[in-house]
Amino acid sequence: MQIIITGGGGFLGQKLAKALLQSTLSFDELLLVDLVMPAHPDQDRRVICQQADLSKEGAVESLITPQTGLVYHLAAIVSSHAESDFDLGYLINLDVTRRLLEACRRTKAGIRFVFTSSLAVFGGELPEVVTDATAVTPQSSYGAQKAMGELLVNDYSRKGFVNGVTLRLPTICVRPGKPNKAASSFVSSIIREPLQGEEAVCPVSTDLSLWLSSPATVIRNLVHAATVEGSSLGNWRTLNLPGISVTVQQMLDSLERQTDAATLSRVRFEPDEAINRIVSSWPGQIDNSRALRLGFQVDSGFDSFITQFMANDLQKTL
Amino acid sequence: MQIIITGGGGFLGQKLAKALLQSTLSFDELLLVDLVMPAHPDQDRRVICQQADLSKEGAVESLITPQTGLVYHLAAIVSSHAESDFDLGYLINLDVTRRLLEACRRTKAGIRFVFTSSLAVFGGELPEVVTDATAVTPQSSYGAQKAMGELLVNDYSRKGFVNGVTLRLPTICVRPGKPNKAASSFVSSIIREPLQGEEAVCPVSTDLSLWLSSPATVIRNLVHAATVEGSSLGNWRTLNLPGISVTVQQMLDSLERQTDAATLSRVRFEPDEAINRIVSSWPGQIDNSRALRLGFQVDSGFDSFITQFMANDLQKTL
Repeated sequence: MQIIITGGGGFLGQKLAKALLQSTLSFDELLLVDLVMPAHPDQDRRVICQQADLSKEGAVESLITPQTGLVYHLAAIVSSHAESDFDLGYLINLDVTRRLLEACRRTKAGIRFVFTSSLAVFGGELPEVVTDATAVTPQSSYGAQKAMGELLVNDYSRKGFVNGVTLRLPTICVRPGKPNKAASSFVSSIIREPLQGEEAVCPVSTDLSLWLSSPATVIRNLVHAATVEGSSLGNWRTLNLPGISVTVQQMLDSLERQTDAATLSRVRFEPDEAINRIVSSWPGQIDNSRALRLGFQVDSGFDSFITQFMANDLQKTL
Repeated sequence: MQIIITGGGGFLGQKLAKALLQSTLSFDELLLVDLVMPAHPDQDRRVICQQADLSKEGAVESLITPQTGLVYHLAAIVSSHAESDFDLGYLINLDVTRRLLEACRRTKAGIRFVFTSSLAVFGGELPEVVTDATAVTPQSSYGAQKAMGELLVNDYSRKGFVNGVTLRLPTICVRPGKPNKAASSFVSSIIREPLQGEEAVCPVSTDLSLWLSSPATVIRNLVHAATVEGSSLGNWRTLNLPGISVTVQQMLDSLERQTDAATLSRVRFEPDEAINRIVSSWPGQIDNSRALRLGFQVDSGFDSFITQFMANDLQKTL
């Protein structure tokens, strides 16, 4: 059995690869594919790394083979990037997702297809607590594209073409590395940069509520998604992954508590209306009960997000 | 200014064309386009009829011109047909819709784009009364495709590429003509066929609640959609058009009241699980308030559906 991770060179892809290699899941090959040649996450001989532009004619079709049993489709154009490059966003976030589903359908029935969606499918006037019954009314192209992907995964699963699961990821904090073009990039920046002795810019109000998960919890949940029973998802294959609700102020308080005032002072406040508009349209709290019932996990509090980053990622970054 | 109606040869397209020609709307040309050459709905010299397969390369791109000010995109593969021909459904209901939006975007900003969606976007466990805040969880490919079209129209409107409005139509009753491949085809059949002295088959339970609109009301609402202010729709361009909730039994009672027991006896009951599953997953009642506030109209009761059909369509059919 072969596992494929698209976006396998990314932060989540690399961490997921390591977790899969250490898991009890039985497989012969783990194929990491990305636009830039992915790093080998491990010495494990089951890992194959491949550079490919999945938007090129035929790329997706040659990727899926009869050996493929599980696809993690993580590759995406992130929110602010999809907002500034409309065509590229639709090409990667919608068309490539659809071609992957179609390639699975044409190859064999029942490939487990794990698709990562986003809080960005929500927008506009939201109830205080978002549930599975809350309408998606995205206020960004990224959100619209992810919402269309959710519909595709559900429809292909309903028809038996794939055995799909869509996970709406909370905002992940702390991401290692550099800021990216996601509207949520600041969420990691305001913790990561000060810890690395650098300045960070906070473009939103400190009373904004964010819906967060730590990387370790998201990775555990992605591994769990490999084996969760399709039938247990009922007639809707999209799940809001568990998160915790934290305000920007609470994040900064936690940072100061675990470091000092000098570290905290590296965060500057420069309101950015474009980012604020996108991020404010996302839910600040979601009902976790369905995902928890299905065996997915949740973080216990924000302090551990910082200790997790300091233990796992800060050393390598500095 | 040119108006285009895709699906212009269909029942709704023809009635809409007549209503537009009699309306106060000012335009130079009304282009009816369909897979089969549309009939001329009127002697009016503003009408042009065109046969075209919009799924063919370049067809959509040559349709939209700088003169185009208003597009009614009614063409679709109906529900049961989209369920049996997966690829055709996605081609017409998703790809052609997207290409039309893209052609508008490439031609000029702000074309009014009226897209007809469906109750079929709903499914699974629904609240007793569906609102604009109810999640769409379609249980058919047709519903998934229409839900994706809604997301596209909203996103293209948000970006200013078109000035879009999506109308989720109630089930329309009484449609003249022959049964079609829509799962809801029986809703008109059980009234129309008996009135024409023919047998009809009812594939669902008589206590099933349906969400209905008469053709005249839907047409009035489609005409209203030409001029409703985009900004009045807020950040979500999809509207549930007003309907009334009627059980199959109430429809049959009304038929008997307005005719006789012999007419009613032409309805046979033959449960069809496939149709029942699709139709039962649609909402039986929807909150009309937002659409009514925006000036859309609603029928007063089911009896008038039958009188409307007898006055407008029965003569021509017999």
